[in-house]
Amino acid sequence: MSVSSPAIIPLSESVQLDATTLTPFPHSRKIYVEGSRPDIRVPMREISLSDTQLSTGEIEHNPAVTVYDSSGVYSDPAVKIDVRQGISDVRSNWIIERGDTEVLSTVSSRYGKERLDDSRLQSLRFAHQMRTPRRAKMGRNVSQLHYARQGIITPEMEYIAIRENQRIETLSVADLANRHQGESFGASIPHVITPEFVRAEVARGRAIIPANINHPEVEPMIIGRNFLVKVNANIGNSATTSSIAEEVEKMVWSIRWGADTVMDLSTGKHIHETREWILRNSPVPIGTVPIYQALEKVEGKAEELTWEIFRDTLIEQAEQGVDYFTIHAGVRLAYVPLTAKRTTGIVSRGGAIMAKWCLAHHQESFLYTHFGDICEIMQAYDVSFSLGDGLRPGSIADANDAAQFAELETLGELTKQAWQQDIQVMIEGPGHVPLHLIKENMDKQLKECDEAPFYTLGPLTTDIAPGYDHITSGIGAAMIGWYGCAMLCYVTPKEHLGLPNKHDVREGIVTYKIAAHAADLAKGHPTAQVRDNAMSKARFEFRWQDQFSLGLDPLKAQEFHDETLPKESAKVA
Amino acid sequence: MSVSSPAIIPLSESVQLDATTLTPFPHSRKIYVEGSRPDIRVPMREISLSDTQLSTGEIEHNPAVTVYDSSGVYSDPAVKIDVRQGISDVRSNWIIERGDTEVLSTVSSRYGKERLDDSRLQSLRFAHQMRTPRRAKMGRNVSQLHYARQGIITPEMEYIAIRENQRIETLSVADLANRHQGESFGASIPHVITPEFVRAEVARGRAIIPANINHPEVEPMIIGRNFLVKVNANIGNSATTSSIAEEVEKMVWSIRWGADTVMDLSTGKHIHETREWILRNSPVPIGTVPIYQALEKVEGKAEELTWEIFRDTLIEQAEQGVDYFTIHAGVRLAYVPLTAKRTTGIVSRGGAIMAKWCLAHHQESFLYTHFGDICEIMQAYDVSFSLGDGLRPGSIADANDAAQFAELETLGELTKQAWQQDIQVMIEGPGHVPLHLIKENMDKQLKECDEAPFYTLGPLTTDIAPGYDHITSGIGAAMIGWYGCAMLCYVTPKEHLGLPNKHDVREGIVTYKIAAHAADLAKGHPTAQVRDNAMSKARFEFRWQDQFSLGLDPLKAQEFHDETLPKESAKVA
Repeated sequence: MSVSSPAIIPLSESVQLDATTLTPFPHSRKIYVEGSRPDIRVPMREISLSDTQLSTGEIEHNPAVTVYDSSGVYSDPAVKIDVRQGISDVRSNWIIERGDTEVLSTVSSRYGKERLDDSRLQSLRFAHQMRTPRRAKMGRNVSQLHYARQGIITPEMEYIAIRENQRIETLSVADLANRHQGESFGASIPHVITPEFVRAEVARGRAIIPANINHPEVEPMIIGRNFLVKVNANIGNSATTSSIAEEVEKMVWSIRWGADTVMDLSTGKHIHETREWILRNSPVPIGTVPIYQALEKVEGKAEELTWEIFRDTLIEQAEQGVDYFTIHAGVRLAYVPLTAKRTTGIVSRGGAIMAKWCLAHHQESFLYTHFGDICEIMQAYDVSFSLGDGLRPGSIADANDAAQFAELETLGELTKQAWQQDIQVMIEGPGHVPLHLIKENMDKQLKECDEAPFYTLGPLTTDIAPGYDHITSGIGAAMIGWYGCAMLCYVTPKEHLGLPNKHDVREGIVTYKIAAHAADLAKGHPTAQVRDNAMSKARFEFRWQDQFSLGLDPLKAQEFHDETLPKESAKVA
Repeated sequence: MSVSSPAIIPLSESVQLDATTLTPFPHSRKIYVEGSRPDIRVPMREISLSDTQLSTGEIEHNPAVTVYDSSGVYSDPAVKIDVRQGISDVRSNWIIERGDTEVLSTVSSRYGKERLDDSRLQSLRFAHQMRTPRRAKMGRNVSQLHYARQGIITPEMEYIAIRENQRIETLSVADLANRHQGESFGASIPHVITPEFVRAEVARGRAIIPANINHPEVEPMIIGRNFLVKVNANIGNSATTSSIAEEVEKMVWSIRWGADTVMDLSTGKHIHETREWILRNSPVPIGTVPIYQALEKVEGKAEELTWEIFRDTLIEQAEQGVDYFTIHAGVRLAYVPLTAKRTTGIVSRGGAIMAKWCLAHHQESFLYTHFGDICEIMQAYDVSFSLGDGLRPGSIADANDAAQFAELETLGELTKQAWQQDIQVMIEGPGHVPLHLIKENMDKQLKECDEAPFYTLGPLTTDIAPGYDHITSGIGAAMIGWYGCAMLCYVTPKEHLGLPNKHDVREGIVTYKIAAHAADLAKGHPTAQVRDNAMSKARFEFRWQDQFSLGLDPLKAQEFHDETLPKESAKVA
């Protein structure tokens, strides 16, 4: 678990994104749908299609298809991208006009101050448009859940309603009717998402809007079983292979392929600075695992962790703008012995850190005992909980065991405690689970956590395919998404073997976009099948360019097509 | 649908397989398990593992893991491979000693004779060990189903029992106990497969042994819901891209990665000769779609097809040794109009050919009206039916529609007719189906076809990911395998776009081996989890080489690992 020093390549003034990361997809156009006020401008991607030549000689016009767009301004040729400047604010007005926050004179965390005062970090620091953090005024709660429970529809909620609808109003009755009804296992997806529906789902705790007040750049999105299934991508520098500039590049690359949120799992000496660069350039919510950084502060010695160090880390990261924190507060002392006979013990890094701490001190985890204190920090910045599954199974053998489910029950208890303090919560899930035990995970999570959004890694449905774990897990991800999981954490082909490169990230994300979309289709999401239908029509009519344009990866489709001539006989009978 | 002439590269005497196709996997050893007689020698692959260094200083021995092996003698370094000679017979003795067949003086089909007499084909022909075909004696039925129903346990059945058990007798009680029980939806998988169980399942029609008496090279295998889930790979030359030698290479390549059967979908002028080369070198059953070749014989004009041409083609191919025929006898005239309002019409090539014929003649399909005659040919060589799904859906939109299910009901009727004549039958299935409609396919197939084995292409669970259709379909394949599908026909990343190369074939097969294994695990197959457990233990103990060796693709796992240093922090928390 120890972490060695990273070989950081200092950022120069000339740092730039790779041109391939910024080139818009062919035949796609960035559009913005305006809401009830001019500063609600919801980005979407419009895919234009060619006409059909009918056998009668007539021309049939194929309407453009509008799709959800997570790629931010990076895919808008009208916006000049400069990662040194960061991207524009989307939400500052909305945050300011609520009048419940104040701008601090400087950062509050001890560690944040140390970093600011360290002149040696100047070359690494994100320096442009540097601002001091914002925090809730004393006694105020600035979470979207808090507003929702008061009946307030925030601009974020309206933005999300527009975004989730994907311009359903432009679709014909016939287009919308040509779909399967789906089986949603008790989800309640409405035909049209209204701002009030968004509010009600957030108020109910069934959906979260991860949107820290210090991350005004975020384009609001929602995670919940009654919305489109979302995908998370993990990035993070390592000691040996990547620089800060590369991490920004990876984030932009991830959202290009469809990541809805990104977790920064960076380690090493400059995670604070790396995170700043990522946040200032990210239009999607950023999640972190604060215990990783806390562990760096005690030089990798888990037993030396304290509540004070952890607390300072939470404040440090909250003031940078992290939108959700993975916190392994369910790893209780009493559960650790339940893992003793496992095939693969504790595979969650956060879980292992906390188990080690509990055993070393023979005390209840400070994450559990200080949960109320953690909530107070979260509500002052609107950081959402992602309650970590520190005891998730690391193998088929350990799936759905006593340790895993004991922790899940505690996560349910903590969910209710967080809700009492109006903090948004989602729950992390496994891991490695055979097909027939996946539904039990989902059902138990819905029950124990009262429908708080579930956010799972895979699950991997077999252990025997290293090099292909995006696929072993993509199978499980599609199924659990169908059963009700709200967000799927991607797995790349390098899982269990090494660090993903850009190719692996793309493979992992596209695989998970497939899983998420397959789940949306199966749940009967009102607009999901429109894109499949447009693709199938293009396929039937041999409109090749349209097939590429409508695909999740237009570039690969075209490249594969161009490798050989298409030939009907290549298809199986 | 028309097919242009292929640019064949003549086979020279020096034709050889690529060395990378023949190199055994590291730390794997070919073993043979002997049955009740010395000529029953069942190949398996034994993966040796390194020891565990316990923290006490002691050494723990990790037993070798035996896995199912479809790769034939190509992975046996003791066997000299020469594709010009073909591989050794496995079954000739068994076939001869049954005394119910006779060797013909020459081939029976008109077309086969023409090819033999054409001296221009000499350079293309598989010439070594050329033999004349074998056929059932007048009035005899030589199908494994016929023997099974008479209570005869053939050597093929004993071979299969040994093969399916994967040396379960060498496993400890503890190793076998460490597994999930599974949910098999009514399958009845015994703890140990006995030869009698194989016989009973074949007699019941619930499993088939595709093993033409003219393909004595085949290593017997079984397809049925109470056995390991199998995988099929499609190969086939095309007009522009491959030669006969390449097709043999592709077949060997496919079985290296785990294909249990191979379908030869070759088109063009030399399919007869290509097929001969493939059969004489194939240890796995070979399937074909005879209507493809029949269509070549009428220069691509579907309406010119006749029963006589088709019949001659069946005999021609049966005498070469094809083990199963895809026959689209369920595409009845009355069903064609049911496809009129579909999004993607008829996407099965065989289905489209027969629909065109039916409409052109406004007559019932000759495959349907001559089904009894077809059965008579099948029983004389023991060719199994793979009743084709000519009306399978080609898009999510068309899934589970009236046309598809009407055909499935007819396939059920034909199954019973074939069974009356003691012919082995499996049923082909879709196609493109959203997650929530997959189980309906399986349930309806089990019901209509009285548990005859189901053999599905995917199904693809969304249409929007060209370039990744091994994944869109691998998801569906895992699910339908779990629900009871007996064999999964692979899909490569090039599906819908072009012809697969070797890389694509490997990706496709490994994806489908994942799906099949995930299904076996979920069904609770008694030995399936042993390999996962061995992998998980190796993973927990950081025994890297063992992780590679135990993987479905040891080479890729090692390559990925070696690209970057493994680092615990790269894993998600």
